[in-house]
Amino acid sequence: MIAVLEKGCPLKQKADIVRFVEGAGFRVQVSEHSDQSLVGVIGPGAERLADELAAMPGVREIRPMAPPYPLVSREQHPESSRVKIDDITVGGNDLIVIAGPCAVESREQIFEVADAVAAAGASMLRGGAFKPRSSPYSFQGLGQEGLELLAEARERTGLRVVTEVVALEDIALVARFADVLQIGARNMQNFRLLSAIGEQQTPVLLKRGMMATVEELLLAAEYVMAAGNPRIILCERGIRTFEKATRNTLDICAVPVLKERTHLPVIIDPSHAAGRREIVPPLAKAGVAVGADGLIVEVHPDPDTAVSDGRQSMTLPAFAEMMDEIRTLAQAVGRGTPVTV
Amino acid sequence: MIAVLEKGCPLKQKADIVRFVEGAGFRVQVSEHSDQSLVGVIGPGAERLADELAAMPGVREIRPMAPPYPLVSREQHPESSRVKIDDITVGGNDLIVIAGPCAVESREQIFEVADAVAAAGASMLRGGAFKPRSSPYSFQGLGQEGLELLAEARERTGLRVVTEVVALEDIALVARFADVLQIGARNMQNFRLLSAIGEQQTPVLLKRGMMATVEELLLAAEYVMAAGNPRIILCERGIRTFEKATRNTLDICAVPVLKERTHLPVIIDPSHAAGRREIVPPLAKAGVAVGADGLIVEVHPDPDTAVSDGRQSMTLPAFAEMMDEIRTLAQAVGRGTPVTV
Amino acid sequence: MIAVLEKGCPLKQKADIVRFVEGAGFRVQVSEHSDQSLVGVIGPGAERLADELAAMPGVREIRPMAPPYPLVSREQHPESSRVKIDDITVGGNDLIVIAGPCAVESREQIFEVADAVAAAGASMLRGGAFKPRSSPYSFQGLGQEGLELLAEARERTGLRVVTEVVALEDIALVARFADVLQIGARNMQNFRLLSAIGEQQTPVLLKRGMMATVEELLLAAEYVMAAGNPRIILCERGIRTFEKATRNTLDICAVPVLKERTHLPVIIDPSHAAGRREIVPPLAKAGVAVGADGLIVEVHPDPDTAVSDGRQSMTLPAFAEMMDEIRTLAQAVGRGTPVTV
Amino acid sequence: MIAVLEKGCPLKQKADIVRFVEGAGFRVQVSEHSDQSLVGVIGPGAERLADELAAMPGVREIRPMAPPYPLVSREQHPESSRVKIDDITVGGNDLIVIAGPCAVESREQIFEVADAVAAAGASMLRGGAFKPRSSPYSFQGLGQEGLELLAEARERTGLRVVTEVVALEDIALVARFADVLQIGARNMQNFRLLSAIGEQQTPVLLKRGMMATVEELLLAAEYVMAAGNPRIILCERGIRTFEKATRNTLDICAVPVLKERTHLPVIIDPSHAAGRREIVPPLAKAGVAVGADGLIVEVHPDPDTAVSDGRQSMTLPAFAEMMDEIRTLAQAVGRGTPVTV
Repeated sequence: MIAVLEKGCPLKQKADIVRFVEGAGFRVQVSEHSDQSLVGVIGPGAERLADELAAMPGVREIRPMAPPYPLVSREQHPESSRVKIDDITVGGNDLIVIAGPCAVESREQIFEVADAVAAAGASMLRGGAFKPRSSPYSFQGLGQEGLELLAEARERTGLRVVTEVVALEDIALVARFADVLQIGARNMQNFRLLSAIGEQQTPVLLKRGMMATVEELLLAAEYVMAAGNPRIILCERGIRTFEKATRNTLDICAVPVLKERTHLPVIIDPSHAAGRREIVPPLAKAGVAVGADGLIVEVHPDPDTAVSDGRQSMTLPAFAEMMDEIRTLAQAVGRGTPVTV
Repeated sequence: MIAVLEKGCPLKQKADIVRFVEGAGFRVQVSEHSDQSLVGVIGPGAERLADELAAMPGVREIRPMAPPYPLVSREQHPESSRVKIDDITVGGNDLIVIAGPCAVESREQIFEVADAVAAAGASMLRGGAFKPRSSPYSFQGLGQEGLELLAEARERTGLRVVTEVVALEDIALVARFADVLQIGARNMQNFRLLSAIGEQQTPVLLKRGMMATVEELLLAAEYVMAAGNPRIILCERGIRTFEKATRNTLDICAVPVLKERTHLPVIIDPSHAAGRREIVPPLAKAGVAVGADGLIVEVHPDPDTAVSDGRQSMTLPAFAEMMDEIRTLAQAVGRGTPVTV
Repeated sequence: MIAVLEKGCPLKQKADIVRFVEGAGFRVQVSEHSDQSLVGVIGPGAERLADELAAMPGVREIRPMAPPYPLVSREQHPESSRVKIDDITVGGNDLIVIAGPCAVESREQIFEVADAVAAAGASMLRGGAFKPRSSPYSFQGLGQEGLELLAEARERTGLRVVTEVVALEDIALVARFADVLQIGARNMQNFRLLSAIGEQQTPVLLKRGMMATVEELLLAAEYVMAAGNPRIILCERGIRTFEKATRNTLDICAVPVLKERTHLPVIIDPSHAAGRREIVPPLAKAGVAVGADGLIVEVHPDPDTAVSDGRQSMTLPAFAEMMDEIRTLAQAVGRGTPVTV
Repeated sequence: MIAVLEKGCPLKQKADIVRFVEGAGFRVQVSEHSDQSLVGVIGPGAERLADELAAMPGVREIRPMAPPYPLVSREQHPESSRVKIDDITVGGNDLIVIAGPCAVESREQIFEVADAVAAAGASMLRGGAFKPRSSPYSFQGLGQEGLELLAEARERTGLRVVTEVVALEDIALVARFADVLQIGARNMQNFRLLSAIGEQQTPVLLKRGMMATVEELLLAAEYVMAAGNPRIILCERGIRTFEKATRNTLDICAVPVLKERTHLPVIIDPSHAAGRREIVPPLAKAGVAVGADGLIVEVHPDPDTAVSDGRQSMTLPAFAEMMDEIRTLAQAVGRGTPVTV
């Protein structure tokens, strides 16, 4: 059972609440966020304290604890939630496509991609300005310059911008330029970052860790929502398995499983799963058919010279061709596709 | 390099061939099948023996060795191959659906399923008569009685019959009743069984082991084809990973990867991947969209009383409903569906 | 609950038993072996039939069903069992080392290895005569000739012989020459082979499948024991994971877990786990320290020319050196090592 | 090839270097740390610039690029490095044992554990003050209060203190109290945290991510060392696999593999691998035998009431008993154990 406290609940009231719970023989776990405190009441039979607790000063509401991710669980919120980014809705009837390069490399590059993917029917532009790289000697992204280029590309094309935040101290900076903040697979259990992202209101694209369970992904989303930000899009991007014929194994099963368990929208990243551009289109189509709310795809004007992930980036013409197939397929499964810009 | 010998090549000629190759400093590996011998010539520079070898008595043809599965590889046979089972073609434009219970349990059960799946548009009936079970105390199948019931159901509905062979000594018996012999995931590397199946001509449905790489699946198919039977259908049925939210992880990526590497048809088994009937339809649809040539699905008139795999078996009405969606989707990706019986 | 029937129980009695159980509302699963039948009584509350069943003609004893592997479980047989092979005891205080080449290649090779490993302190000789190979074009073993060479090496050195059986139809042949029949990782769930091995009395070395759970390994052993052969040695040989720095990942945790759950002896195969001879000695030592009852190690007089698994085969001097370290370590953990031949 | 620049190299010189490299047709990747810049020169044939680059103002030295982790690789630093923490040396002949509770819970608890593990022969005390937890509602640690209690326990017992840092902004605080900063498995690819830890001089215990390859672990260590801190201890703590009989699968193979590839010390965490205290001792012994430089073990005065990881925490008497076995074993493999405090 969780007691959600009033915003700005004074310390004295908190202490009384904790004392009351412990006095009744239960354990307490306090989760503090910038303007909200959650008090977990742990132990069998905790529910019998519900009425008394609800009546105490400083308590706003009482929530049951199971499943372990109450805020994101569909059980407690049967209706699917929609994440609105201006006029774009993720999680509604329309299938949303996000496309762009792995990393922003130059004005020419990002403009060329943005123009092409907008023309092909994408709704949002992706592109890394801060890149988490396995090696300290790999290109780490253009930083703020990259963010500025993304914002210019948005001006130019109307595409909304999705870009990754790799550290807490960059959130404010990135949020000044981006429409959606991406948390990458390697940071899915960087809990401080999750909480901090939850304490601001820019929507979040949360990628599943390459060896995280579905349950852990939902708990990670719970961190964000518990901290105050309900605008979360989940992304399946392939898990690590024994099979090395592809970079990762796209866990297509995760989409219907997530749809059962959570009300949040779910998209698919076929590029990181595949690791090779040739098999991105069939995986993207599988994603549409399985019921994903959207796709995020890597595209580059000249993949062979890309500073990162070139092997898995589609060319601009191949992307346009794939979008035609995607549209037909989306229709067949009863989904709309946004009108091309 | 592989020297394929003439059928019935006398031992004296074989010995000459082996002596010639070894005399030239290469290693020899002989693979014997009922009516055909393959002589692998191992070592760098083997190709320079090609002309001389080709001219020797008893040698029918010379094939290069790479990739390690020359007979099933698309590289050497660019055109997709089709497996014909009477009037049904697997690997052509039509999407083929195989459906039925995990195990044949009784005449009533198999007739009820057969009638329903035929009406819904399936082309073939599946059902186990010999079941490989993890525990020696689990139901091991009805054996010959099960085979006879499957044959009766074929008479009744026109559906072709697919059923599993678990041991070499059963092949002749099963082939008397079945149209397609299934090799299950646990037997994918039972090489004697593969060779024996290859020495007869009933088509084979070869399921990927839950622990097998795509490469190993292709090598297993090579065993069958090297022994003389080219009528092989591959089946992706989920691999074992750390994720336990589903019974297995459907390796949807394997479909396009297999399509690149082999000319053989590839189908998907969403039931064993899912482990729960609720998520079979989205996975089946993903299979169609990704480019599989067919589906094999578990269906039971009363899943909760099934002797095995009940949790993942669809009810008859749910199957019929899914088939409607499948037909729409197949059309959207340019595939036909066979006319309902 | 399982009813074990008398040997040669007449069909009429069996039918009565089955009818009685079904009449009481339970499901029946019959597991037939050459001279023994097991009747599983399935359903909640089955225990209440125990007394009546025990009293029926043809029933020898009643066993509870849980855990799913009653015969091999330690719960029901707390004392560790010992597998005696002439004067060698596996599962007692002595640490047993089995060593030899992946495959028997020639008389010279197997004699040279046998002499060396005997001198270094091994108790048994391993060597494949029938090899399960991923590719149909790889060396498949010398067959009966290999078996004869192994038997000659036994004559010469006194080492007992362990060799693999890959198919049911070879069991009698292999058992004529070998002291222990190995079931390889790829056949761990070849249930017919398991049952057939269980119907004869030569001891069995059962290797864990590379993607089999501990539970499945125990169920595989249960197949052998349920069919009548209790002389089983289990072997952990590495599982398949995402990590490719070694051929497999040695699941060292499996040893204490198996020791908790079963009374059977457990040995370690560091060679197949490592895939490279350099790291075999540290893994072998880890196996001794963790409590394994023995080791099985690949050794070759000239690993670089071995027809298979050369990369992971130790040289003769390296093996001798490792044995010195093993002896010291065995002493430190309170285990004896058999006197060198 | 990497050009290491002089500390405080002026921007003008950097720009000249970059311009020179790009002018010669290569790509540049700059990795900036507080007082040092690394310039990666990317592209085939980069080595031919070595002499000219080495002569440019601002360049301190030139290093070859392969392996991708030049600073931590053994290839370039054949001698094993030792991490000294006052009078304790990790990576020398002595086997070092770190023990303590998962989380610091109270003064009584941490004092009781510290007294007992010191008496049993541990050299360092572990205990979490900041805990990364999968759920936002789980106990997140006592924070600074926990750190203060750890420092008091050090005063009392002489044990050095190891504790986790979960975020960049806590480094300075934690380093005030701790002797070794732990980076947990979930943060192994939190590259900003790695770089920041590298910019200070307190030694680092870097745990392998449960999903990380050996290569990725070494690259993570390279981040720390490239930023300036060479005092790194690596820790294998189990990887995530399909096997669920234990919490994780201890990758015992990783120890010899790491010892080949890096000069850094390597320790084993048997507690997180096992997930159950019963099998911690055999795993710990395997760790000693395989050649690890130390162990980190969870111990709690009353595991059943522990706020976290109680199931895998040893009791105090069990730990003392295990230490006796460890000492005997260490001797057998030629390692010393520090004199008990």
